[in-house]
Amino acid sequence: MTDEIVRLDLQRRSRLGMVEAIWGENKTASQISKILKILDTSSELALVTRVGSKKAKSVQELIPNVKFHSQARCLTLGLPAKPQSSLGKTLILTGGTSDLEVASEAELALRWHGINAEILLDVGVAGLHRLIAQLDRIKEAKVLIVCAGMEGALPTVLAGLVPQPVIGVPVSIGYGVSSGGKVALEGMLASCAPGLVVVNIDNGYGAAMAALRILRSADFS
Amino acid sequence: MTDEIVRLDLQRRSRLGMVEAIWGENKTASQISKILKILDTSSELALVTRVGSKKAKSVQELIPNVKFHSQARCLTLGLPAKPQSSLGKTLILTGGTSDLEVASEAELALRWHGINAEILLDVGVAGLHRLIAQLDRIKEAKVLIVCAGMEGALPTVLAGLVPQPVIGVPVSIGYGVSSGGKVALEGMLASCAPGLVVVNIDNGYGAAMAALRILRSADFS
Amino acid sequence: MTDEIVRLDLQRRSRLGMVEAIWGENKTASQISKILKILDTSSELALVTRVGSKKAKSVQELIPNVKFHSQARCLTLGLPAKPQSSLGKTLILTGGTSDLEVASEAELALRWHGINAEILLDVGVAGLHRLIAQLDRIKEAKVLIVCAGMEGALPTVLAGLVPQPVIGVPVSIGYGVSSGGKVALEGMLASCAPGLVVVNIDNGYGAAMAALRILRSADFS
Amino acid sequence: MTDEIVRLDLQRRSRLGMVEAIWGENKTASQISKILKILDTSSELALVTRVGSKKAKSVQELIPNVKFHSQARCLTLGLPAKPQSSLGKTLILTGGTSDLEVASEAELALRWHGINAEILLDVGVAGLHRLIAQLDRIKEAKVLIVCAGMEGALPTVLAGLVPQPVIGVPVSIGYGVSSGGKVALEGMLASCAPGLVVVNIDNGYGAAMAALRILRSADFS
Amino acid sequence: MTDEIVRLDLQRRSRLGMVEAIWGENKTASQISKILKILDTSSELALVTRVGSKKAKSVQELIPNVKFHSQARCLTLGLPAKPQSSLGKTLILTGGTSDLEVASEAELALRWHGINAEILLDVGVAGLHRLIAQLDRIKEAKVLIVCAGMEGALPTVLAGLVPQPVIGVPVSIGYGVSSGGKVALEGMLASCAPGLVVVNIDNGYGAAMAALRILRSADFS
Amino acid sequence: MTDEIVRLDLQRRSRLGMVEAIWGENKTASQISKILKILDTSSELALVTRVGSKKAKSVQELIPNVKFHSQARCLTLGLPAKPQSSLGKTLILTGGTSDLEVASEAELALRWHGINAEILLDVGVAGLHRLIAQLDRIKEAKVLIVCAGMEGALPTVLAGLVPQPVIGVPVSIGYGVSSGGKVALEGMLASCAPGLVVVNIDNGYGAAMAALRILRSADFS
Amino acid sequence: MTDEIVRLDLQRRSRLGMVEAIWGENKTASQISKILKILDTSSELALVTRVGSKKAKSVQELIPNVKFHSQARCLTLGLPAKPQSSLGKTLILTGGTSDLEVASEAELALRWHGINAEILLDVGVAGLHRLIAQLDRIKEAKVLIVCAGMEGALPTVLAGLVPQPVIGVPVSIGYGVSSGGKVALEGMLASCAPGLVVVNIDNGYGAAMAALRILRSADFS
Amino acid sequence: MTDEIVRLDLQRRSRLGMVEAIWGENKTASQISKILKILDTSSELALVTRVGSKKAKSVQELIPNVKFHSQARCLTLGLPAKPQSSLGKTLILTGGTSDLEVASEAELALRWHGINAEILLDVGVAGLHRLIAQLDRIKEAKVLIVCAGMEGALPTVLAGLVPQPVIGVPVSIGYGVSSGGKVALEGMLASCAPGLVVVNIDNGYGAAMAALRILRSADFS
Repeated sequence: MTDEIVRLDLQRRSRLGMVEAIWGENKTASQISKILKILDTSSELALVTRVGSKKAKSVQELIPNVKFHSQARCLTLGLPAKPQSSLGKTLILTGGTSDLEVASEAELALRWHGINAEILLDVGVAGLHRLIAQLDRIKEAKVLIVCAGMEGALPTVLAGLVPQPVIGVPVSIGYGVSSGGKVALEGMLASCAPGLVVVNIDNGYGAAMAALRILRSADFS
Repeated sequence: MTDEIVRLDLQRRSRLGMVEAIWGENKTASQISKILKILDTSSELALVTRVGSKKAKSVQELIPNVKFHSQARCLTLGLPAKPQSSLGKTLILTGGTSDLEVASEAELALRWHGINAEILLDVGVAGLHRLIAQLDRIKEAKVLIVCAGMEGALPTVLAGLVPQPVIGVPVSIGYGVSSGGKVALEGMLASCAPGLVVVNIDNGYGAAMAALRILRSADFS
Repeated sequence: MTDEIVRLDLQRRSRLGMVEAIWGENKTASQISKILKILDTSSELALVTRVGSKKAKSVQELIPNVKFHSQARCLTLGLPAKPQSSLGKTLILTGGTSDLEVASEAELALRWHGINAEILLDVGVAGLHRLIAQLDRIKEAKVLIVCAGMEGALPTVLAGLVPQPVIGVPVSIGYGVSSGGKVALEGMLASCAPGLVVVNIDNGYGAAMAALRILRSADFS
Repeated sequence: MTDEIVRLDLQRRSRLGMVEAIWGENKTASQISKILKILDTSSELALVTRVGSKKAKSVQELIPNVKFHSQARCLTLGLPAKPQSSLGKTLILTGGTSDLEVASEAELALRWHGINAEILLDVGVAGLHRLIAQLDRIKEAKVLIVCAGMEGALPTVLAGLVPQPVIGVPVSIGYGVSSGGKVALEGMLASCAPGLVVVNIDNGYGAAMAALRILRSADFS
Repeated sequence: MTDEIVRLDLQRRSRLGMVEAIWGENKTASQISKILKILDTSSELALVTRVGSKKAKSVQELIPNVKFHSQARCLTLGLPAKPQSSLGKTLILTGGTSDLEVASEAELALRWHGINAEILLDVGVAGLHRLIAQLDRIKEAKVLIVCAGMEGALPTVLAGLVPQPVIGVPVSIGYGVSSGGKVALEGMLASCAPGLVVVNIDNGYGAAMAALRILRSADFS
Repeated sequence: MTDEIVRLDLQRRSRLGMVEAIWGENKTASQISKILKILDTSSELALVTRVGSKKAKSVQELIPNVKFHSQARCLTLGLPAKPQSSLGKTLILTGGTSDLEVASEAELALRWHGINAEILLDVGVAGLHRLIAQLDRIKEAKVLIVCAGMEGALPTVLAGLVPQPVIGVPVSIGYGVSSGGKVALEGMLASCAPGLVVVNIDNGYGAAMAALRILRSADFS
Repeated sequence: MTDEIVRLDLQRRSRLGMVEAIWGENKTASQISKILKILDTSSELALVTRVGSKKAKSVQELIPNVKFHSQARCLTLGLPAKPQSSLGKTLILTGGTSDLEVASEAELALRWHGINAEILLDVGVAGLHRLIAQLDRIKEAKVLIVCAGMEGALPTVLAGLVPQPVIGVPVSIGYGVSSGGKVALEGMLASCAPGLVVVNIDNGYGAAMAALRILRSADFS
Repeated sequence: MTDEIVRLDLQRRSRLGMVEAIWGENKTASQISKILKILDTSSELALVTRVGSKKAKSVQELIPNVKFHSQARCLTLGLPAKPQSSLGKTLILTGGTSDLEVASEAELALRWHGINAEILLDVGVAGLHRLIAQLDRIKEAKVLIVCAGMEGALPTVLAGLVPQPVIGVPVSIGYGVSSGGKVALEGMLASCAPGLVVVNIDNGYGAAMAALRILRSADFS
């Protein structure tokens, strides 16, 4: 006999300061809707990640006040937190257009927590001059999230150029040895640049929450 | 004909605010000494990581003013930066005694840059009460570095309990499936706790530099 | 020339005390039906695992007295064994909604052998308080089956808290490094908690049969 | 500054009913001795696993009342629990002489908790008649621990023959594809025999603790 | 500019005594048809392996005198060689119904070369008595081809029971660790039974050609 | 807020002498079109690789002057460079029909840069005489690109026979151990033939650009 | 309590026609000696494989009538079977000197069973003419055992040239991707040559027993 | 009976224009000496790679006219070819001191064939300015060999900056995910820079022979 009570982590906002996030990939539209309804009843915010447009439509039919962000492949319930510009800006860099989904997930997750986040496209290492040309803009950010697939060298080059926290996000694009993003992940972990940190492949949301922890840490203790 | 000029990255201190670090594992004592001599001449500080006691002795015979830190398996040249207590404390947690080398490398690297760092031993997840008992002390730190081998679950549990930045360091202890640290690494990357970031296996130095980037980021822009 | 005789293991019930189980994933509806008909003729019970709703429907068209359990993705032939409450209860814990299919397969397989089994949802390690709140209920069970995907830390935490037999079932949910369930599997095998045992990824049925062996072992010799 | 307090899990005996166990492989003789001294002072029992004869000697020089079990590669502190024959017998089967170390670790760990345990050698699947000849003796045990390297088929064959709980322990012997024990491990996990459970490669101690949990489960709730 | 000449290995029949075989999986129906037409013109026989029913139909529309064998997933051109019963029989054993496609490919390939081949179903190791009951029939064959998925233990058990050549064919059925057939493959390679040989996963055709080489070797030199 | 500026590497032609190439696999038709329009406006040439016929059609609807090369699975914008026959010929060899897509991508990419390139089909190592018969033609080429799947032995055999530069391209055809092309890749890297170089699996474009670099190197410095 | 009876498979000679073989790698000299003494008492022959010269000496000190074959790294007890030249010859080919140990193990194991076996050195694929020059000698053998490391292409080339049974033995020489022999193994399994069979890496003994099964199969049934 | 004739590939110099090269790692000093003596008798040149200083000394005791190059870990027999400066220069770049052995092997192998080769040290990507400062010198070379361990990003950055042939050599330095060189290898293969080619990990000799093929290709046909 299955236990029908859904145990949502409603203390999460107070404990970690984060909106409830639901990983949408391995859940049906009906399972997602059930969870969102409970949160809606408690007036909680929610972010559902990794949702395709078809599943999103099914959820929206069940809960109309849910919003779909197609480029980020996320659903949101409720309104974003009000901007906290004093915490500083996060810049999200990508090697190319193919990394855009993951970068957008990070950008949305940050914005939903009131963080100022911008995406900087097409600064891959195969044409270094494009990156060098943006160094001033890069130096203005407090935290850098760097999305890269293939050989994933971009975060390494960046972490060698600037002193900010750099969070590498391997992206599952590529083919042959790089299909699935493992090469980008391991390249970032093996980086010769000091202090580069990494999250799971395609984990834009995780990188955003890491940036959030960093931006807020100035206020701890 | 080999090019005999060693191109040290002497601008590193000004660019990244980090002491020159030399990865000692795949270098001979004579190669390490040669590099340290050049740095010594330029009055640079240096940190040499992953050096066993035997190789350390050989280097010290060639450059007497080098200091060996046996638990951290590091050599240092010059004096540590003066403590910058205003930047806040970094707490380094470990599951058990076997993680001590890696934790000590992180602690030394931080101290060498003037950061207040402490190690908290034996708080593994197989006896949760030991961890819970330390929560107050944990909450006082600005950044948490968490070293764990085997299944590597400790950073996940911590990142679910507190809102600080949590840097997971997988440790290459274990046997069978966990030998080499890959399971701990992948367990941390796959973590269901939001915003946990990870560095390479045994990379205590890298975790320290990530903590340094985070602690200083409050002062950027 | 293919040998047309199907050699079913009809002695299995007497030898192992287990209902004939058919792994449905790599068989066609027609192959499954053929096997079920033979068992039906011998008045044998049967459990067919890993069957999608479409294939289930095709089988039911061929053998109407077969029942489909959609959440567990199983077909059953015949009636469940009568409940043997004296053997004690098995509790099936899961980190979240995405593990529900695997947990349901385990629950059905146990119930079909007369074992009292219950599912306890949403007690993942990223919000430990939810697990701690259920400890009394957990301690009432004789055997614990723990389903977890991602980093798979839940069985480790549990086996450190209670003295019962704990059977870990890695679940193939996750993405990036954890896609396919290998990280959860290896995390459970590498566990620092003593005496945790593991079955194949998604093998809810296998975990149930292991629980059955354990519950009955009190009566051996 | 390193935290010098060792946090031993002294509540473990009351919580899990298990003697404190120390994984000796990645600890120095001096680290092991330091831990044993604290336990000795508290009159705790202890089992140190994966200790070679040389390290054992060094520990014994520091703490003379420690005993070394060379075939099991373990150190013990204190006396074994008094035999609890009512709990029933555990039989430890091995394919051949090369599995003896792992089997002995399991046997010692069980004996140290008062459990009746016996090793049955040389019953590998390449000569099935040797196994069949021992079936009566096998059926007398309440739990079976089965150690096997190479292709690891022995637990599969056994779990198809008898209804008891069968715990497979992959052993890291073999060469080529089977070196390291991964093939034996995965063969056991992939087993077509229902209800076989598995522990990490070479984890004789873990298998023993799993058997202990099972034998005691009859007395729970 | 692409070279339009297809260089078929028309000397293959005289050199190796084997019918031209075309691997159909990564070829389009039009590419397969083009090759078959050239062979047809030269009055060559041909066997096309790994062809699904849809692609088969497309080829048959282009070349009507091609025959499709759905269980073996093969197309054939021309008539089978006339039976050479003096060479002896090959027995193809399988653990279960799910291995039938691969076994059928082997059986068809042998029959097409005039070899007497039979399939023996459902003799998996989880119910050893079913295998033992067939030992007399097994001993009558000159060569044994043994198809097995999951843990792949069947060829090991057989090669320990009988002195004939045993060719193991790992089958890509299973899930979790065994999905894709790698565990069965490595289990066969790591086998403790002497003289077991192995072919690629699902390579029924290759096993058949190995059997053919063996059966004919009596006539060499 | 996403940065809408696409930063194309328009200096690439002058810096590397290569046409802008767009990796089409992980981009939508609309993303590809957007990039092509910018290039078209700048009168740049472009090559889009790894585009299926359906996506190609969608792009062509948006930008009619784009040409689709179905066998090479590429789109081109603009006209090919005028032939530079003085640079010499590149021969592209393949083991069989299944390698044709990859070989065609290489051939098209070379032709688009003005290089004379030809494909030589069906010279696999299982029928060596077919390869030996083409040695004279092979020796006329300045650079050899060798595409092979399965065990990937063809480049090894060739590099042992002739002194030209040999570029191995592993192809992702095969099944079982060779599915995905990893075996062919590693076989080429492990080759006992001196001076064989390799590119990523299926990377016909990369092999072509390597050949281009080689052919032009005669004119450097 | 350990069971002291060693259960040797003394029926093996009658059942499989093979001398008792002991895998020496993971056994101590004292364990090997104990087994050999029992066999000696029963006047059994024995072959101990994978024994280094130091361990061999220790065994010989305990049992003087044991012979060490240093190139094959084997010990033998008793005299070889008398030559059965009517069964035909086995030729053992190797790519180079580094494969000699494995080839010698195969040659000794065959000779010990009365089979005529010869080693043919230095016929690697990087210099094909050396192989072609030996074709007549190769065609005289009834079975071919082919040892190769690195990319392991030699058995593929051979199986494309001659119709005999070809048994590939991957050898664990090589570096980088080929270290450990996995590339050679997978290259042989993925071979495009029909009917090539494979044994575990370095398993010269296994290849010999496979050849023995083949040579004797002419006399079965 | 082992075949005692060593079949050296004496036609190699005329066929490929390369000195006989012997892979020294898996050969004993006595085996190497035996081969060198035969070559010496035929007045052939030879290069023995991957030889440690101890084995080198043993060979030199047996053949005094052999020279040891300790940094390259090679032995040479005979004199280097006379310099062919008209063929142009090869530049060998490395990320750091730890790559020096591999770079030196490449440099020696080129010099031994009369090619002008130079090593350029310490131009790793973590301090890009060091690389940029050398661009003029880099552009003077006809071929670039780039050795890199860790994440292996250097060849990618270079191939994006200059139009020459770039041969990446992954180096087996690093730890954790990068130990063994696999990450560097896959990072180079997955590179987003067009036309980068790769050889096996640590294969300095192979990269040299590839450069030789390229430099000479200008003279072919």
